[in-house]
Amino acid sequence: MSTPSPASSASTHASSASPSAAQLVAEVDRGFDASTARLVDFLRIPSVSTDPAYDGETRRCAEWLVGELRGLGFEAEAAKTIGHPMVVAHHPGVGADAAKRPRILYYGHYDVQPADPLELWTSPPFEPAIVEGPRGKRVVARGAVDDKGQVMGIVEALRAWKALAGGPPCPVTLMIEGEEESGSKSLEPFMHAAKDRLAADVCVVSDTGMWDIATPAITTRLRGLVYMEVTVHGPSRDLHSGMYGGAVPNPINVLARILSELHDVDRRITIPGFYDGVGELPPTTRAQWESLGFSDSEFLGDIGLQDGFGEKGRSTLERTWSRPTCDVNGIFGGYTGKGAKTVIAAHATAKVSFRLVSRQDPAKIAAAFEEFVRSRLPAGCRAEFESHGANAAIEVSESSRYLVAADAGLKAVFGKAPLLIGTGGSIPAVGAIQRILGMDSLLVGFGLDDDCVHSPNEKFELACYQNAIRSHAAMLGEFARLSR
Amino acid sequence: MSTPSPASSASTHASSASPSAAQLVAEVDRGFDASTARLVDFLRIPSVSTDPAYDGETRRCAEWLVGELRGLGFEAEAAKTIGHPMVVAHHPGVGADAAKRPRILYYGHYDVQPADPLELWTSPPFEPAIVEGPRGKRVVARGAVDDKGQVMGIVEALRAWKALAGGPPCPVTLMIEGEEESGSKSLEPFMHAAKDRLAADVCVVSDTGMWDIATPAITTRLRGLVYMEVTVHGPSRDLHSGMYGGAVPNPINVLARILSELHDVDRRITIPGFYDGVGELPPTTRAQWESLGFSDSEFLGDIGLQDGFGEKGRSTLERTWSRPTCDVNGIFGGYTGKGAKTVIAAHATAKVSFRLVSRQDPAKIAAAFEEFVRSRLPAGCRAEFESHGANAAIEVSESSRYLVAADAGLKAVFGKAPLLIGTGGSIPAVGAIQRILGMDSLLVGFGLDDDCVHSPNEKFELACYQNAIRSHAAMLGEFARLSR
Repeated sequence: MSTPSPASSASTHASSASPSAAQLVAEVDRGFDASTARLVDFLRIPSVSTDPAYDGETRRCAEWLVGELRGLGFEAEAAKTIGHPMVVAHHPGVGADAAKRPRILYYGHYDVQPADPLELWTSPPFEPAIVEGPRGKRVVARGAVDDKGQVMGIVEALRAWKALAGGPPCPVTLMIEGEEESGSKSLEPFMHAAKDRLAADVCVVSDTGMWDIATPAITTRLRGLVYMEVTVHGPSRDLHSGMYGGAVPNPINVLARILSELHDVDRRITIPGFYDGVGELPPTTRAQWESLGFSDSEFLGDIGLQDGFGEKGRSTLERTWSRPTCDVNGIFGGYTGKGAKTVIAAHATAKVSFRLVSRQDPAKIAAAFEEFVRSRLPAGCRAEFESHGANAAIEVSESSRYLVAADAGLKAVFGKAPLLIGTGGSIPAVGAIQRILGMDSLLVGFGLDDDCVHSPNEKFELACYQNAIRSHAAMLGEFARLSR
Repeated sequence: MSTPSPASSASTHASSASPSAAQLVAEVDRGFDASTARLVDFLRIPSVSTDPAYDGETRRCAEWLVGELRGLGFEAEAAKTIGHPMVVAHHPGVGADAAKRPRILYYGHYDVQPADPLELWTSPPFEPAIVEGPRGKRVVARGAVDDKGQVMGIVEALRAWKALAGGPPCPVTLMIEGEEESGSKSLEPFMHAAKDRLAADVCVVSDTGMWDIATPAITTRLRGLVYMEVTVHGPSRDLHSGMYGGAVPNPINVLARILSELHDVDRRITIPGFYDGVGELPPTTRAQWESLGFSDSEFLGDIGLQDGFGEKGRSTLERTWSRPTCDVNGIFGGYTGKGAKTVIAAHATAKVSFRLVSRQDPAKIAAAFEEFVRSRLPAGCRAEFESHGANAAIEVSESSRYLVAADAGLKAVFGKAPLLIGTGGSIPAVGAIQRILGMDSLLVGFGLDDDCVHSPNEKFELACYQNAIRSHAAMLGEFARLSR
C-alpha cells in the first residue's frame, strides 16, 4: 500500500542550495565501487557479539566504524558500555538553517550472528565474496545484510551529502550498537545515560527488508521477543543407561516432553495467559495484507517446503507478522558425537524463544514459561533458567510526517511508493527508543527474503546496497524540507 | 542366592600337581603391584572405538594386549576385521591332561567409551591416577573397570598360572574385541569366520558387577539393546526464527514432540508391538530378588535422587533387570553455543536406545521405531535413521556345571557363594556367542555400582581388581577339575 503524497506537508525551510534527489543519486553511483570496497572491509571483521571469543574483533569493528564517521566530519566515539562498545556520532548539519531542521537519529548494529554451521558456507563467512547472482552482483558474508550492509547504506549516504553539500542538511546522530544479536543488554542503560546526546525528532532504522528487489517497504509492525535458555537437571552425574535406564528420570526425555507440551494440536501455545494482550488484526489491515499478492508457495518453496505449518486458521502472513509463536532455537544434551554412547545425561538444555505481538508482556511471559516448565518436572529434576533478552512488540505510527517524507524519498529513487508491511523479526531498539528517547522510528530496510539472514551464505544484492545508499541520501533531503 | 556345592560334580581328571586356590591367591598377591602397573599402562592408551579420531590408538591398544599375551606363552594376534582389530589368543594348556579338560573361551573388550564431558574429570581420563578412597586405593581412568581392568583380571590370572604351573591347566582362548562400546559390528562376522579357532566348551565374560565389594555375583540375565539415531529434517536451510517462526515446521519442536510420545503417563513405551515377547518375572525369581536386600534409597541416593522414576507398578530392580526401557542418550539441533541465536534449524538429531528383555525382537523394534517416527512427521519433514546396534536379551542357564565350578572358585576367594543376579546393561557378545559358537557364557564381573561406568571419573577399586585376578585364577583351577 502507498502513502499520501508529501507535497502538502513540505516545509518552507527547504534551501534552494540543497542537492536534488537526482544529484544525490548521481553522486552515490559515482562513488559506488568505493562504497562496496568499504563494505567489504567492514564485513571482514568477525564481530560475533554473542561469543566472548570474538570480543577483541567486536571492539575492532566498532573502532573501524568510528574512523569512517570521523572521516565524514562527525564527532564520533566507541563509547564504553557494560558490554560491547556503542558507536555514537554526531554532526550538527551544514549551513545556518540546519538547526531549524528536524534532528535525525540513525540506529543500526555492527555486530553479527555466529557463522556456524561453517561447513555449509560456499566461501568463508568473514572473507566477503563478490559473486554474480541471477540479479547481478552480490556480496556473500556474515552480516552482509544484517546489518553491516544496511549501516553502510546510511554511512555512504552521508558521504554523498558531504561531497555535494559539505555535510548533512540536518543535525544527524548515529547510534550503532554491538549487541543486537545477543540481547542488547547495554542499549537501554546507554540510552538512559546518553539521553541528551541522542535527542532527536525521529529515528531511522535500517535493519528490515524490501517487498521485492524493485519495491521498497516501510515496516510498521514488529514482533517482540522473549528468549530463554532452560537446563533440566536430573541425576547428579551421567549414568550408564543399561544400569539405570528405566528407573531414573532422563533429563533429555523430560525436556522433550515439556517442550512438546508448549503447543496444542492446533499449534496454539499452551502457557497460561500467553495470549493476554494479543489483538486481532483490524479488518482494514487484513484486507491490505490480502491485497499484497504474497505467495505462500514462493515463500515456502524457497526453503524447500510445500505446506505451511502453524497456528490453525491463520495465513502465513498472519503467522509471521501478527501472531505470537514459540520455537526451540537450540537443544543439546548427552552424547552428541559420532556413533553411540549408552548414557543417561545429568542435564539437558534448550534455547526457547517466543515472538510476541500487540500488548503481550515480555516479563509476564518469561515468568509464565518458567512456571510452565517447573510445574511439569518429575521428582528428582530441577530447572535452571537464563534470559537472553525480552522486548515487547511494536506497532509504528503510519501517519507521521516523517513517514510521509521517507515515502517521498523512496519514490524519488524507485519510481514507486513503498509498501507498509509487518515483519516477524524483532528489533529491540525500536521499543526502547520510543520508551526512553520519546520518538517514533521509521523502519526502512533493503534486505530481501532470500538473503539467508542468520543462515549460511548470507548475502546482500549490490543493487539493494546501491538503492539503500541512494534512498538514505534522498530521504535525508526530504527530512530537511521539514521544520522541527 | 547361592548355588549347590561343586563337590559332587568334581571331575576325576584333576591333577594333584595343580596349584591349590590358596597357592594361586598367594602368587597373585605377590605380583599384584606389577599387575597394577600393567593395568595403568593399558589404561593410558585412549582406545575410544566410536570416534575415528582415535583409530590409531585403538589399534595400538590391541597390539599392546597381544604383546602381553605372547609374553604369557600364548599364540596371539590383533586379527583384522571390518572394523577395529580383534585380539585373539590361544594356549593349548600345560601337561598331558590338558586336552581332556574343558576348553575355556574368555571374552572382554579393550575399547572404551568417549571420556566427555572432560571438564568433570578430577584427573585426565587417560592419565590413570591411583588415589586413596574410602575402601582403599582405586585407579581412576576411562576404562578402569569397563572393561580394561576386568580384562587384566583374566590376563594376570593366566600370569599366576604361568608362574606356578608353566601355563593354564586347560586349553584357553581369548577373544578381546575393540568395538563393544560402538556396536560390535565386526564381532559376528569374525566369529563366523573364526569358528574353529574359537571352539570351546564354555565362555567366561568379565564385564559385569559384584553385589557389593565383599560379595561376588554371577549375572544370569542381561537386557538387549536397540540403539538408533534419528535426524528430523525440515526446511532446506537454517532460518531466521523471526521471519519464518510460526509458519514452518521446526525440526527441534517436531523431534521433541515425537520423543515425548514414546512414553505414556504410566511410563510405558507406546510403540505398537513393543511389549511383544516381554515375559513376566517367575514368582520364584521375584521372591529371590525381593530377598536380596536391595536398597532403593542407596541406589538412588548415590546419584543424587530420592525417588525412582519409571514404569508404573514396578520396583527399581524390575525396572533395571527385567523391564524394557527407552532413553534418549543424546540430542542436538540448532544453536548450541553460548548466548542466543534466533534460528530455526534445518534438522535435529536424537540418539535413542531401547533396552530389551525376554524374547523381544530387536529387528522388529527397530523397524517399529522408524514407523513410529515417520507416522508422526508433519508435512515438510522427513526422517533419516542410522542403527548403532541391535541385540536381543539373554537369560543364562543357572544349572550348568561350569556355573557350579565358578561358584566354587569364587567361594574359595571370598569365603561366600556368589549371588545370581540380573543386569540392566547389554553385552551383545553373549547372545552372539550362544548363537554362533554354540556355548553358554558365565558372566562373572568385579565392578561396583559406584564405579562411574560411562561417566566422568570412572574407577576400579584395587581390592576388586585383586579379587578379579584371584577369582579368575581360582575358577580356572575349578574348571580344570571337570572333564570335557
